[in-house]
Amino acid sequence: MSIKLKNGIILATGENGDFRVLEGSCIVINGKIIEYIGPEEDAPCADEVKDMRNRILMPGLVNAHGHGPMTLLRGVGGGLALQEWLETAIFPIEDKLTPEDIAVGERWAIMEMLASGTTCVSDMYDFPWKTWEVMKESGIKGNVCRVGLSFSDTEEIPTNRFNECVSLVRDYKDEDDRVFSEFCLHSEYLTKEAFVRKIAEINSELHANVNVHVSETRREHEECKARHNGLTPIQYLEKCGILDENTYAAHCVWVEDGDLEIMKEKKVSAVFNPSSNCKLASGFASIDKMLTKGVNVALGTDGCASNDNLNMFEEMHLGSMIIKNIKSDATKLNSEQMLKLATVNGARAMGRTDTGELKVGKRADIIAVSLDKPHMYPAFNIPNLLVYSAQGSDVVMTMVDGNILYENGEYKTIDAEKARFEMKKCIDRIYG
Amino acid sequence: MSIKLKNGIILATGENGDFRVLEGSCIVINGKIIEYIGPEEDAPCADEVKDMRNRILMPGLVNAHGHGPMTLLRGVGGGLALQEWLETAIFPIEDKLTPEDIAVGERWAIMEMLASGTTCVSDMYDFPWKTWEVMKESGIKGNVCRVGLSFSDTEEIPTNRFNECVSLVRDYKDEDDRVFSEFCLHSEYLTKEAFVRKIAEINSELHANVNVHVSETRREHEECKARHNGLTPIQYLEKCGILDENTYAAHCVWVEDGDLEIMKEKKVSAVFNPSSNCKLASGFASIDKMLTKGVNVALGTDGCASNDNLNMFEEMHLGSMIIKNIKSDATKLNSEQMLKLATVNGARAMGRTDTGELKVGKRADIIAVSLDKPHMYPAFNIPNLLVYSAQGSDVVMTMVDGNILYENGEYKTIDAEKARFEMKKCIDRIYG
Repeated sequence: MSIKLKNGIILATGENGDFRVLEGSCIVINGKIIEYIGPEEDAPCADEVKDMRNRILMPGLVNAHGHGPMTLLRGVGGGLALQEWLETAIFPIEDKLTPEDIAVGERWAIMEMLASGTTCVSDMYDFPWKTWEVMKESGIKGNVCRVGLSFSDTEEIPTNRFNECVSLVRDYKDEDDRVFSEFCLHSEYLTKEAFVRKIAEINSELHANVNVHVSETRREHEECKARHNGLTPIQYLEKCGILDENTYAAHCVWVEDGDLEIMKEKKVSAVFNPSSNCKLASGFASIDKMLTKGVNVALGTDGCASNDNLNMFEEMHLGSMIIKNIKSDATKLNSEQMLKLATVNGARAMGRTDTGELKVGKRADIIAVSLDKPHMYPAFNIPNLLVYSAQGSDVVMTMVDGNILYENGEYKTIDAEKARFEMKKCIDRIYG
Repeated sequence: MSIKLKNGIILATGENGDFRVLEGSCIVINGKIIEYIGPEEDAPCADEVKDMRNRILMPGLVNAHGHGPMTLLRGVGGGLALQEWLETAIFPIEDKLTPEDIAVGERWAIMEMLASGTTCVSDMYDFPWKTWEVMKESGIKGNVCRVGLSFSDTEEIPTNRFNECVSLVRDYKDEDDRVFSEFCLHSEYLTKEAFVRKIAEINSELHANVNVHVSETRREHEECKARHNGLTPIQYLEKCGILDENTYAAHCVWVEDGDLEIMKEKKVSAVFNPSSNCKLASGFASIDKMLTKGVNVALGTDGCASNDNLNMFEEMHLGSMIIKNIKSDATKLNSEQMLKLATVNGARAMGRTDTGELKVGKRADIIAVSLDKPHMYPAFNIPNLLVYSAQGSDVVMTMVDGNILYENGEYKTIDAEKARFEMKKCIDRIYG
């Protein structure tokens, strides 16, 4: 099956990795792959032709840090700081969630993400095998992990949980290479050293990605140093042997200059979560410094309980705005850089070199952004328009691996009515 | 003509000024006025009944600082800091604009604003009589001024401009009290003392509102002090006798504690413009301190060339997020406070005591926000949902003075096709 997308404005990636805005060109997708980007007259034929007039065609957005099923907790505990928010508002509800709830909440999250242009998402939450299944059936792309936690005060490894972590990575394989299973260490403060080391050991054979929260709050960062002879979370994780190019670290708000050196050397990616960091008042990550040092920085929404949505357009906007003002420099984190955070850098963080860019040979993970609404005209500078003017709702088509999953308000792989009915039933039971 | 809006979730204002979320109630509008808010069974009859199931009914948003026709310059000079942006990118284009362009650009701005829930807007730009006419014909509510400028180095008052400022206030009267004409002093740096004093003198009879830019950048603030024996822009304006409850001051990023005392005493309102201040890297206004001091703070988008849209939902989101994080306190500028900035406080800043709240006897300036999309469910806390989860595109109905101006993508008073055609013609000529 091949599709031609014609008459759109294409945000392609050139040979040097920079964006090139193409007009009068088309994209031809063959199966899962982008086969051709170029002038219409030289394009190969396709089984289906779609007119993308007055649409920007861009790489699908990569949400590199999230907790999808937290749609079930949207807005819960709004206005509290991180620790109080977790302990008094979030954990008591999470204790009630069943695997079926997770499936329902994740499906609802995927609906929101597809409608706002996310094609690939990292998900860290309970009952990840359910998330894995829902991702598979929905057609979205994602990385899923069993949360690596060891609550006890001793270094004893919780065998069940450890085995579940390993089994997810070993047994959940997707022949389409669309849904990845990976390891997770919740954080320095919730994962004991023996656990971290054992994951590192087993992953030296399995080579899965490793997802971890790092230095989200000042308290977490300082308490780690107090516990570990002055080692920061990054230094501690390095000591445990877990840091390499497979590792991506969410938040990194309080990382120090030395941490950035380690991240650069070990090729660890950072994930910027501007809404969550602002809403929980966790601090401003030094994104500009990370980029200058050559650290790969991705973008994420975090769970929608601390955001309170999964809208990557909002993250791009907020992230770019705050970094300029924090640095007192309007040229910082410009729209092209921000679009890379939200696409190719996210893909790289999640261990995917075959997506995040519109380029021949890459997977066809493509979204169409409408220019129909007043706020999208005039369109002098396409990257600026996408970051500063657009809303998530301007997305009118979301394609993953060549399959259209969402188009003009309709979901192709999800029964929206049923999903809403199930979501309401869950919410009524959990909070009823 | 009377309308009943039934089955919606109503964000009403109680006697103490706090929000009250009402379910199972309805709103009845008689002519321009909210006649009834309460249980359906006690409601008076109405000529028309509209089902607002799964919609939040809230006060229309008040955009208290803008330059509407700058839709013609959307995204121009993106990434430059304020002074360079103005001098190299904006002013050369503005020199080309005709009164007809202003009408076209303002109409385009109003379309964007109505579609994202703004019912009342402050507008400061050239050819304001054109803006006045377009506001009148569109049905939106707004304040319009002739920009008070005196470019020359002497204190000589530019007679033509001064007369135009006065004539706008004297001659442009709206019998519906919907479009106000008011005075404007561009800023301390572009308006000489003699000009400011003469406006103050004449306004002691006319009692119009006065719109002024204050302490937007550190450079502006410090240069004022250097020019005026250490007086800040607020102190300088006070010395010129212009500050009173009619005055509202945009930006106020660099105001000092003493300035806030003056603003509080003189009842001067401040207007927070988070996107513009971030995008131009002008600094973070001390909104929390202003509110604590008892200064009335409103919210604005500024012109869409430095934003790059006119979406008040985005401003609420960004503004609330950055203040929490700057103050390292997740409880700061909560969603109810932010909704007040964007509604009743804005109305007060613009000299309007009859709007900005859903209360019996107030003007019927009401918007409906849809809960249909995945990101708007669950809806545990309506103010949080509006500030943190909603997008401007969730607005499905915008009513001003009891007239529905926008509903489900359709404009009732503007020919959208014609407006787009004219906008394109303007853009092609200006930049062609």
